[in-house]
Amino acid sequence: MASRTSKTVTLTKLIPSGLPSKDHFTIVEEDASNLVASDDGELILQVICMSADPYLRSGCKTGEVPRPMSGFVVGKVIESKNCAWPVDSLMGAALPFTSIQKLNDIVLKKTITWNLTDYVTEENATLGLGVLGMPGATAYGGLIDVLRPDKKKNETLFVSSAAGAVGSMVGQLAKNVFNCTVIGSCGGETKTTLITEKFGFDHSIDYKTVSTSADLAAKIKECSDGIDMYFENVGGMHFEAAMSTLRPHGRIAVCGCISRYNDASGTAPLNTIDISQMIYTFQRVEGFVCMPYLSGAKMNFLKDMSEWHKEMKVGCEQCFYDGIEEWPTAFQALFTGANVGKVCVRLL
Amino acid sequence: MASRTSKTVTLTKLIPSGLPSKDHFTIVEEDASNLVASDDGELILQVICMSADPYLRSGCKTGEVPRPMSGFVVGKVIESKNCAWPVDSLMGAALPFTSIQKLNDIVLKKTITWNLTDYVTEENATLGLGVLGMPGATAYGGLIDVLRPDKKKNETLFVSSAAGAVGSMVGQLAKNVFNCTVIGSCGGETKTTLITEKFGFDHSIDYKTVSTSADLAAKIKECSDGIDMYFENVGGMHFEAAMSTLRPHGRIAVCGCISRYNDASGTAPLNTIDISQMIYTFQRVEGFVCMPYLSGAKMNFLKDMSEWHKEMKVGCEQCFYDGIEEWPTAFQALFTGANVGKVCVRLL
Repeated sequence: MASRTSKTVTLTKLIPSGLPSKDHFTIVEEDASNLVASDDGELILQVICMSADPYLRSGCKTGEVPRPMSGFVVGKVIESKNCAWPVDSLMGAALPFTSIQKLNDIVLKKTITWNLTDYVTEENATLGLGVLGMPGATAYGGLIDVLRPDKKKNETLFVSSAAGAVGSMVGQLAKNVFNCTVIGSCGGETKTTLITEKFGFDHSIDYKTVSTSADLAAKIKECSDGIDMYFENVGGMHFEAAMSTLRPHGRIAVCGCISRYNDASGTAPLNTIDISQMIYTFQRVEGFVCMPYLSGAKMNFLKDMSEWHKEMKVGCEQCFYDGIEEWPTAFQALFTGANVGKVCVRLL
Repeated sequence: MASRTSKTVTLTKLIPSGLPSKDHFTIVEEDASNLVASDDGELILQVICMSADPYLRSGCKTGEVPRPMSGFVVGKVIESKNCAWPVDSLMGAALPFTSIQKLNDIVLKKTITWNLTDYVTEENATLGLGVLGMPGATAYGGLIDVLRPDKKKNETLFVSSAAGAVGSMVGQLAKNVFNCTVIGSCGGETKTTLITEKFGFDHSIDYKTVSTSADLAAKIKECSDGIDMYFENVGGMHFEAAMSTLRPHGRIAVCGCISRYNDASGTAPLNTIDISQMIYTFQRVEGFVCMPYLSGAKMNFLKDMSEWHKEMKVGCEQCFYDGIEEWPTAFQALFTGANVGKVCVRLL
């Protein structure tokens, strides 16, 4: 067998606060020539692309270093003794950020995987990080299973981080599949223009032009006389503005709280809530993550979403970084607002 | 027709803050001899009993006075041109607190009514204010439809105002129908003893012995390593203690917030919430009121609850005041902790 080397994105310095940067990571190389799928159930995965996601930030605060980073990847099975994953299968999975790795039944049972073979090719495998990956499953599950828009009612949906991968797909699904009026919040004119012109949102709000939840609520009220649903990606003033404009029977799906991820001490101010407003209005606030939708345990994510994607009802901007060495730069971009859409690191 | 007089509980002085008392109310008498059901759909209702409930407090802060108080009553139809409500029907309804009143189709469509004829007699009509009334429907809907206990899992439920009508029924249903471990919070030893000895709660907490949400959370932790469900009747530190002990997949049903009802300025401190804790845990906070369950629009409240009541799985302590003149005293007792169970004012 030809000699081959695996590369792993490795956290070498904890990041208790502030922005992650190249200084916190190293790419560790190892000889992978001896990796073979020899026992029953084993396979070798060649990673095609890796994701960089905000939720990884909080994991970098504590623990031992150096240690490998892990997250969502799409890979191709290049050797296999596992009948569920024959050679050439395309696998989405949450795994260490290692370019070539051996997996066995135990690892495969512990992690989340989804079979992309029928839905993507090696060339467009990054779809498995976006519209057919974690962000897609988050948008899908949060909107359809948690917020439950009523197609007949032309409900109004508000979504924060609206130019991001999850937010933009939530808005598109709400608009194009569920007949909602959609208001998106994002930072800066480039993004507000993008969500209305490219993604078809009805209204956009530049949150950088407001500084309090009352001001943000006023902006929402300029677009609509209230919201029926809020898809929460950020926390902070957005949550309070959403609560104060939430109509009777309104729902809030909480899947992200990026305003707290860079908080070193855990002392960033919590939100306030007047739970008495929720009683007569039957309002609901509910947290969720993508796992049950992504794994297929709940609903039909891959089938539904790939169909809507083909019908051009939902898509996901992609922002590419080439080479595993670029992963730390890609990760930092999530927190500086430098990215638009899903951040994908391609391993060539 | 013999002369008859109607009596109405009338708010004569607004109660912007503090305790309601006799000084705020008058019983207004009127000649009711001329009340007859003459047009199609009309009926005359003789009120048998009236309820006094905490939620009425907030309505006494503003508006014009004098005005009649309204709330839940059970009455007997004594004249009728309404085929849905023949003479001798027993009606539960939200109506003005007036001893004899004429109702027509328009009024009956606007208010909530429930037909108790098959479930109570004139003698035990107060059941229609308790186990078969608003508190029963609140306990039923909140527990079964909002919190959704999983019978197979022996889940742990925490309920505040646990000696009250709603709270005690929530605990009994959770224990006797849904196989839960039940922790109740209430004020004072009489009540903590009542809920464990009479209502069969597994654990009781006297909230008067703690002053912070952290202390209350510690008390909950002494009973259990966390809670799966919290039935919120009070707000304030109870909400925060419940959130901080809520397990993954935990749910909070919010149906009352008595800690805020006596707040004149609306400046009582709001709760704080860390919504980021709800994400990976799939936690949910949801408000609701009894109406859809009481009216029969959702589920089968009267049938289910009267069955469980007959099987002794759920009951409701009653605290009687006799004579409409006692209504203000009965109402005040809700806020001083003087009552145990459902406060019923019987009109003899």
